[in-house]
Amino acid sequence: MRHRRKQWQTDILEKDWPFYFKNPSLLSGQWNDNHYEAVHVEIGSGKGQYIVEMAKLYPNKLFIGIEMMPLIGSYILKKLSVENLNNVRIIIDNADNIKEWFEAGEIDVIHLNFSDPWPKKSHAKRRLTYPTYLNVYKHLLKNHGQIHQKTDNIGFFEYSVEQLSQNKFVCLDFSADFRRNDHPEDAETEYEERFMGFNQPIYRAVWSYSHD
Amino acid sequence: MRHRRKQWQTDILEKDWPFYFKNPSLLSGQWNDNHYEAVHVEIGSGKGQYIVEMAKLYPNKLFIGIEMMPLIGSYILKKLSVENLNNVRIIIDNADNIKEWFEAGEIDVIHLNFSDPWPKKSHAKRRLTYPTYLNVYKHLLKNHGQIHQKTDNIGFFEYSVEQLSQNKFVCLDFSADFRRNDHPEDAETEYEERFMGFNQPIYRAVWSYSHD
Repeated sequence: MRHRRKQWQTDILEKDWPFYFKNPSLLSGQWNDNHYEAVHVEIGSGKGQYIVEMAKLYPNKLFIGIEMMPLIGSYILKKLSVENLNNVRIIIDNADNIKEWFEAGEIDVIHLNFSDPWPKKSHAKRRLTYPTYLNVYKHLLKNHGQIHQKTDNIGFFEYSVEQLSQNKFVCLDFSADFRRNDHPEDAETEYEERFMGFNQPIYRAVWSYSHD
Repeated sequence: MRHRRKQWQTDILEKDWPFYFKNPSLLSGQWNDNHYEAVHVEIGSGKGQYIVEMAKLYPNKLFIGIEMMPLIGSYILKKLSVENLNNVRIIIDNADNIKEWFEAGEIDVIHLNFSDPWPKKSHAKRRLTYPTYLNVYKHLLKNHGQIHQKTDNIGFFEYSVEQLSQNKFVCLDFSADFRRNDHPEDAETEYEERFMGFNQPIYRAVWSYSHD
């Protein structure tokens, strides 16, 4: 089903917001203008619950959310329009271009939350943990930079563990049922919140990459 | 509860069997006498269902089972006494001495099936994926040798993934619910068979170590 864009979405997407970057390439190498402790990037921010909550939890860190779909991304802009947060930046564009938006080593942490699992083998190249993507992440991550992945999709998670491990990422933290314990240090995505009601596990892993 | 040794157990443990090696150090470097395709070692063989079934599945590979407890190990000897298998060897002893029993690089695959999880943090050193054990495995494994781990214990599994990854093992195969698909290539342990009835996941990972 194709959703028609509502008027508020057109308005909010056309307006200039201090947190909304329509030409992210112009910022390459300069995202951390305010000397934040770390630069976090979420690829696939959905309606933005995760990135907004994380920005509140960690005011000294910078959170850059990327969402491909304008219809979805408009909800992030809406959320931010009523918040008073300085440490969030939003890019509404296809992350396949991410290499143009950041300099090598500019990112501390990349978050992959409930990414599209692309379950068909013939679509494996589109998974955000496919080796070509992992090579881009390696380029963009600083030395010992991290990937934080959460998903409910067991097949995608299994695939991701194998790919990350085989591409020289090292697992710092691993959970096969992340929400069986409280994790106040990590916000929940909209999807995660809904999904947890089904009593199925959320898988999570933190990986680090060393350039040595 | 301490089990008293039954007469058949005393008898079977005292008897000489071609598959039972009471002085495994004497065989160091010579286990693969018959030019088997690969040398597999299971640490903690229990009553032996896994190693006996695997030996039947792969007659061209050698399977060496280690079980610490004589009362338990006697069941393996009993099983083997009525089988006609040439490719199984049994050691009933504490695997802490394993370095004396094998030469460096003599083993192709180490199996860790449903090892004691030692859930208390103060007992972490006893877990069979604690770094000191991993270093022994690295020494004993040939180049690109493998560790195959199965467990139902989520905490132990999570710990093991972190330790193996951080100690330079690379994950070749990963499953967060191994028995949701058929796996005729891998035998079930007694414990696994019983456990699968509870509809809880069996975790499994295959790791490889490169000496380069």
